[in-house]
Amino acid sequence: MTMATKPATAVSAPKNGRSTKDVKYVYLFREVEQAEAYAGGQWEKVRALLGGKGANLADMTRLGIPVPPGFTVTTEACNAYLAAGENFPPGMWEQELEAIKAIEEANGRWFGDLAKPLLVSCRSGAKFSMPGMMDTVLNIGMNDAVAEKMVERTGPRFVYDLYRRLIQMFGSVVMGVPDEVFEAVISTRRKEAGVSTDTELSADDWLSVTRRFKEIYKTFTREEFPQDPYEQLKKATEAVFKSWNGKRAIDYRNAAGIPHDLGTAVNIQTMVYGNFSEDSGTGVAMSRNASTGEPELEGDFLMNAQGEDVVAGIRATQPISDLKRDMPTIYAEFEKIAQKLEKHYRNMQDMEFTIDRGKLWLLQTRDGKRTAQAEVHIAVDMVEEGLITKEEAVKRVKPTQVDFFLHPQLDAAVVKEQKPIAKGLNVSPGAAVGIVAFDADTAERWAKEEGKKVIMVRPETKPDDVHGMLAAQGILTSRGGRTSHAALVARQFGKPAVVGVSELEIDLVGRRMHIGEDILIEEGDWISVDGTTGVVFQGQLPTVVPDINNPYLLKLLSWADEIRTLGVWANADYPRDAERAREYGAQGIGLCRTEHMFFETERMPIVQKMIMAKHAVDRKEALDQLLPLQRGDFEGLFRAMDGLPVIIRLIDPPLHEFLPAYDELVQDLADLKVRMQHYHTLSEIDTALAEVRVKQDYLERVVALKEQNPMLGTRGVRLGILIPDLTKMQVRAIFEAACNCAKEGVDVQPEVMIPLTCHVNELHVQQTALETVAKEVMEEQGITVNYKFGTMIEIPRAALTAGEIAGVAQFFSFGTNDLTQTTFGISRDDAEAGFLMAYIQDGILKENPFASIDAQGVGRLMEIAVTDGRAARPDLEVGICGEHGGDPSSIRLCHKLGLNYVSCSPFRVPIARLAAAHAALEDNGR
Amino acid sequence: MTMATKPATAVSAPKNGRSTKDVKYVYLFREVEQAEAYAGGQWEKVRALLGGKGANLADMTRLGIPVPPGFTVTTEACNAYLAAGENFPPGMWEQELEAIKAIEEANGRWFGDLAKPLLVSCRSGAKFSMPGMMDTVLNIGMNDAVAEKMVERTGPRFVYDLYRRLIQMFGSVVMGVPDEVFEAVISTRRKEAGVSTDTELSADDWLSVTRRFKEIYKTFTREEFPQDPYEQLKKATEAVFKSWNGKRAIDYRNAAGIPHDLGTAVNIQTMVYGNFSEDSGTGVAMSRNASTGEPELEGDFLMNAQGEDVVAGIRATQPISDLKRDMPTIYAEFEKIAQKLEKHYRNMQDMEFTIDRGKLWLLQTRDGKRTAQAEVHIAVDMVEEGLITKEEAVKRVKPTQVDFFLHPQLDAAVVKEQKPIAKGLNVSPGAAVGIVAFDADTAERWAKEEGKKVIMVRPETKPDDVHGMLAAQGILTSRGGRTSHAALVARQFGKPAVVGVSELEIDLVGRRMHIGEDILIEEGDWISVDGTTGVVFQGQLPTVVPDINNPYLLKLLSWADEIRTLGVWANADYPRDAERAREYGAQGIGLCRTEHMFFETERMPIVQKMIMAKHAVDRKEALDQLLPLQRGDFEGLFRAMDGLPVIIRLIDPPLHEFLPAYDELVQDLADLKVRMQHYHTLSEIDTALAEVRVKQDYLERVVALKEQNPMLGTRGVRLGILIPDLTKMQVRAIFEAACNCAKEGVDVQPEVMIPLTCHVNELHVQQTALETVAKEVMEEQGITVNYKFGTMIEIPRAALTAGEIAGVAQFFSFGTNDLTQTTFGISRDDAEAGFLMAYIQDGILKENPFASIDAQGVGRLMEIAVTDGRAARPDLEVGICGEHGGDPSSIRLCHKLGLNYVSCSPFRVPIARLAAAHAALEDNGR
Repeated sequence: MTMATKPATAVSAPKNGRSTKDVKYVYLFREVEQAEAYAGGQWEKVRALLGGKGANLADMTRLGIPVPPGFTVTTEACNAYLAAGENFPPGMWEQELEAIKAIEEANGRWFGDLAKPLLVSCRSGAKFSMPGMMDTVLNIGMNDAVAEKMVERTGPRFVYDLYRRLIQMFGSVVMGVPDEVFEAVISTRRKEAGVSTDTELSADDWLSVTRRFKEIYKTFTREEFPQDPYEQLKKATEAVFKSWNGKRAIDYRNAAGIPHDLGTAVNIQTMVYGNFSEDSGTGVAMSRNASTGEPELEGDFLMNAQGEDVVAGIRATQPISDLKRDMPTIYAEFEKIAQKLEKHYRNMQDMEFTIDRGKLWLLQTRDGKRTAQAEVHIAVDMVEEGLITKEEAVKRVKPTQVDFFLHPQLDAAVVKEQKPIAKGLNVSPGAAVGIVAFDADTAERWAKEEGKKVIMVRPETKPDDVHGMLAAQGILTSRGGRTSHAALVARQFGKPAVVGVSELEIDLVGRRMHIGEDILIEEGDWISVDGTTGVVFQGQLPTVVPDINNPYLLKLLSWADEIRTLGVWANADYPRDAERAREYGAQGIGLCRTEHMFFETERMPIVQKMIMAKHAVDRKEALDQLLPLQRGDFEGLFRAMDGLPVIIRLIDPPLHEFLPAYDELVQDLADLKVRMQHYHTLSEIDTALAEVRVKQDYLERVVALKEQNPMLGTRGVRLGILIPDLTKMQVRAIFEAACNCAKEGVDVQPEVMIPLTCHVNELHVQQTALETVAKEVMEEQGITVNYKFGTMIEIPRAALTAGEIAGVAQFFSFGTNDLTQTTFGISRDDAEAGFLMAYIQDGILKENPFASIDAQGVGRLMEIAVTDGRAARPDLEVGICGEHGGDPSSIRLCHKLGLNYVSCSPFRVPIARLAAAHAALEDNGR
Repeated sequence: MTMATKPATAVSAPKNGRSTKDVKYVYLFREVEQAEAYAGGQWEKVRALLGGKGANLADMTRLGIPVPPGFTVTTEACNAYLAAGENFPPGMWEQELEAIKAIEEANGRWFGDLAKPLLVSCRSGAKFSMPGMMDTVLNIGMNDAVAEKMVERTGPRFVYDLYRRLIQMFGSVVMGVPDEVFEAVISTRRKEAGVSTDTELSADDWLSVTRRFKEIYKTFTREEFPQDPYEQLKKATEAVFKSWNGKRAIDYRNAAGIPHDLGTAVNIQTMVYGNFSEDSGTGVAMSRNASTGEPELEGDFLMNAQGEDVVAGIRATQPISDLKRDMPTIYAEFEKIAQKLEKHYRNMQDMEFTIDRGKLWLLQTRDGKRTAQAEVHIAVDMVEEGLITKEEAVKRVKPTQVDFFLHPQLDAAVVKEQKPIAKGLNVSPGAAVGIVAFDADTAERWAKEEGKKVIMVRPETKPDDVHGMLAAQGILTSRGGRTSHAALVARQFGKPAVVGVSELEIDLVGRRMHIGEDILIEEGDWISVDGTTGVVFQGQLPTVVPDINNPYLLKLLSWADEIRTLGVWANADYPRDAERAREYGAQGIGLCRTEHMFFETERMPIVQKMIMAKHAVDRKEALDQLLPLQRGDFEGLFRAMDGLPVIIRLIDPPLHEFLPAYDELVQDLADLKVRMQHYHTLSEIDTALAEVRVKQDYLERVVALKEQNPMLGTRGVRLGILIPDLTKMQVRAIFEAACNCAKEGVDVQPEVMIPLTCHVNELHVQQTALETVAKEVMEEQGITVNYKFGTMIEIPRAALTAGEIAGVAQFFSFGTNDLTQTTFGISRDDAEAGFLMAYIQDGILKENPFASIDAQGVGRLMEIAVTDGRAARPDLEVGICGEHGGDPSSIRLCHKLGLNYVSCSPFRVPIARLAAAHAALEDNGR
């Protein structure tokens, strides 16, 4: 292997000038045009070649911004070095020496020169910012001789501070000497001098520290600290290259999905000093406010200080506005530079600067991090300033960032200082602060009657907890997953929620909960719940109020609407949800779950009567009572959605969900039996007996309805076929409501949807029932309304036989929760609390398929359904109404599959509008 | 519509001869060549044109077999008649008259002629034999004048018996007069005459009956009985045509899937009389023994009697062998005819004959019905006689007929006279007779210790009932469906079983069961269960012993093996099953369910210890105890299957299946609490407390393992990933067994199968674990065995991502029970007792998808899996090991999809061999 042997020319001192090799491995910052030419004019390739930091330094140089002269050794050189068994490629070192010469000339200072010594910094700089890469080495070029001479001009304190920093950084970063050893010397010195900070150490102290550092260096490396500036430079360059293959860097790239063959560049730059004098200083600033997005410089600086001092927080920094007052010319220059950079990068900038004896130098610039609010504000401003296009603005804001405007958030500043007491699944975003209530009735009473803010806490929630959940600020459960009842209801109603907090031990009898051994929270105590991050705090934390009507957001969303081709509808069961959905921009109701209306407190007894009915006539009576209630709800929906489609799904859940739980009944009955032994009066016994009879009736029905696997049981259309009167009642309520509204002049567009279809014949049966009732009602009412008849596609067989099904159904709506469940054979009720989480942790599944649609499996079924369905009926309307309808990556898939719309909970409508626009832009390669 | 008007020429008497129309609607029996020419030489088309009966009569005529002369009016005529609004097509009636002339000439008898009158019969005859079509009308041509004259020659008794029959048949069949009215006259007459049978009635009686019949005819039809033979003929012809569209006929065709446009033919044939004299007679005979298949004539006859008398059973019939003695010439002639017909039709014949004054006439021949045993015997004999090919023999025997040889059957003769007490699902064929035992321990004790024959009766069965089921003759449950635990185990072990007998009320406490209000069966009472038909009888019915080693069956199956391309493997968990499977012809083990070994009485405690283990070390201890037991089982399997592949599936069911049921534990604990209040001694209380603690430990674990939908829960590979030590123990047991056997010289071919895979990464994890252990064991043992690693495809996602999965798996085995469950979203545990049965009854589903694979949905997934899997790995081995593997129509699908093999329970192996041969023949268009 010739590559493994050390080419003599490459590492020996060059003197003789250029190698025979033509590859240019080293670019001066001012040679940016050459780098660009080499990269074929593509800025992305320049970044790949010079690394992000190097490319930006070169770029700033070209823009005429004051950058200390320097050069970049390319990533290609790094790759060649590593490929050749850690040997510089031919010619590289010679080019680096030439570059040093060029900056010597530019500065009028020379490496090792005693009168005018050149000091440089050496920094790594890959294409992407990466933890684990080599740290900075400052002051390369310093040595004993230079130091001695320099003292004459600048005094010993400054010089030996520079020198000891070089030895410490070079020693630890390049040579692997443990940094703690150096730090121990300084802290010993501080103790000896009786001072508490480094700045208080004297020139003598630093001279002594420098000497000790050289000893340490020798002890660990078994050689003297190199006095030759070129040797310092070469070793630092090599250390950067090697750090590309360090363990931490490799691990990070694996985790972040960054390719391993990019390599890192090396940036060598002339040193400037913010700590040289009183008219020197250093700071960092954003070109706009990173919290609010306001167009103004925002940042901090320190005079007569180094960057490290700003970070270490030893001295209080000053706001950048003070610079305007103290050094107006410098401030004006900086402001102009910031504008120039923004214009150039078309983005808000995060800049590092140093003032060296009254002269401003830029050391780095990069796109600035910012809050969601600022992101939206800046994007919209920049469009209006002509910096970027609407498409770019839309693309720049992540859909999830919209959440910020929809839900109260915990005050970030306060949260920083708090320690969470527990962590669970972040199933519904936003912050909620309130007192703990352990059951729905208490929650409702406290909230409604006493006006208290309540967090409802339960092991898990059930349909008859909904009234308490609605009254509460937020929801917290110890069990359940991302699609548990609590999560679904919370998202539906925009209630912040954290579920599945397994360390939470809830004692419903004692009315309190434990977390570990130390934390005890009684009912009525304050807690704060962050549904965005899934953490729980003790006490009452301050929140920031959301504003969906933020004008910047509204403008951005209106641009998103111009771009997107996918419709965005909402899932809404009640008129008030529909109104909100419309306000948030929904273009239709994609799912009204009729059974949710059944769970209302005053309706449950009627529903239970219907289920408990032993004779058809009793059942009919209950259904007759439900009819006007359902009709009323539907009328509200139609009015709210005047002119837009409303998809109403017939009853879906298994009937046992409307009855008390089996375990509860068995326990109650056992308890009653025990209690009855202690009764003495006849009336006590009679009351107890009556109670036993009622519970036993319930138990009997619950046992009859009990199923091994209710998710695969008698629900959806199966129920509709077994209880035709229920279907008929619901259809009648829909059409009576539609006719009533149409008579008022409302433009009603009802679409009746059948759930859980697995065979086309089920649809035939339901269609016949529906058409009969619809015709009947329209004749009674003397008015005709147009309607559609369609089905959920939520069972694999429905997707696989979509061609047949589309022969009957005029629309499809994917129920991807159920479809995921059956396609994976995973029960969402169980798995998210069980093996599924282990699968995700172990990387067996990359993502929770209940959070984002699994494109390979579930997506393939969807594709089959869309293709076969449209082949059978070209104008088939296809949407999605599962929980995935509000998930950006699922929305991207839906766009790709050519769906007509996605439907999600009202609170996710703005997110979906943006995500749909992103999908459209991506599709157009933008 | 000109078709609807009545063409004058068609119905009026013809006289003037042929119509201008050329279509030939009427064929004399002897004109068979013309019919054949018209049908383009295709016999199937001749049968469609002339109907089955007509075609066979024509055919016999051509073969020179004595058939009374006659003719057939074609099905085309029928269709034209119905299409024209019940009008004969032009020319048809004229052709019928010509045909009458022709048979008048042939017989030397003429319609209405007083000296030599012609009497004919009229019978319907469609392509397929069909209930609901018109019955026979005999003696057309008889009238007052003919009768009066005929009396002179044959005496009045014979004549008026003929005449009254004509009036009765014509009246009831053609004119719709209620037959009961005619019958009432005869029975009144019998009473008046003081006799008990018709044969005892005198000539005067019949004369008087004839007169009353004519009166009845007139009363109901408001017209005289037609004296014109042509009118009789025309009306009878029309009646046959009309009966094609009778309600019963239409219903039957709908049910049997017979097209409605076939039409029926009309057969007119000269009368012959078996009741004319002592050398006349009538009978039916099969060309071979229909029960045993022995090659000998089998049948009955009566001298001086009519066909009806044979059927009515008024006189004892004689066996056909008596004819050989009484009329040897006739017998010889008949025997020759039978042979000729068999040779012609290449099938065993069922013939009707009449001897009219010493002359033999054949009135009908058709393929004879026979038992399964006879079917096999005859098919094999006919191949050896050169009558049919092996392929034809194989094709002729239905796969389900093989069941006959595998299971005892109730004696058909006895069953005929018994009334079943209940009916359920026939989930495992064969008859079982025994005394009722209501639990597994009792069943086992009675069977093993007392040598009693036992039927185990349970509401439903669970894994810990298996030892009782194995000891029992048969199984009966009141709940559960076709794939319930009881059904699966019963089929697996060839135990006859009837499940889901909902009218059965089992009182486990009182040790008895009720059916309705009248039937009470105590434990220990005899019952008989027919798993072939699903019915249950009270008492001890006789059974017929099966014989799988029937030489004819063995020969037939060996031919099937030559034909089929699909392999037939067996599901076997124990060495004894594997041996039986091999004896039945299995070419491998397609599924060994390792967990079944866990259910053995002595192993359950160890398994429970493993599950209840709170520390890894306790679990390890339990696993160490299981290892040698599993290894021993596997060694047995490998030895039994020396030289053949053995697929061993790692643990599949959820762990809770090995623990007591939740409901049971809750109930027990509640009961214990109540009971404890009555305890007085300390030791009583201590014992009870200990029991509470044990139960509570179990309860805690059961609750922890409890899942809403266990079918979609933590089982299969998910369990293997969560408890790697369990996987490792099983793999170690497999490889230790394989190495041990290999050292003995056994050719071991282990294949390790992962259940419930839904993502390729699950396989990666399991493959790594397996390879490590396998390597380890083989190194320890110093021997290498070849093995395969593969997976079940039983989750839709596995099928949809089969390409990826085949990158890891070397074989696929479809688990179509689970695949059906998830593809339909139907829980097999619940649905077969619930809505699924309603779906099948209502025709929403044509078939139970758990009995036969749903080709459209599940089949499509299988096709995707086979196609994508083989694209990724061309030599991928693909089979099926679900319950469907033994179902003929599913086997057909598997053949079509190109599977390598089907695997089914040992008892279904012979059936599958035959079904696979059928599939291959069908595929080749044979």
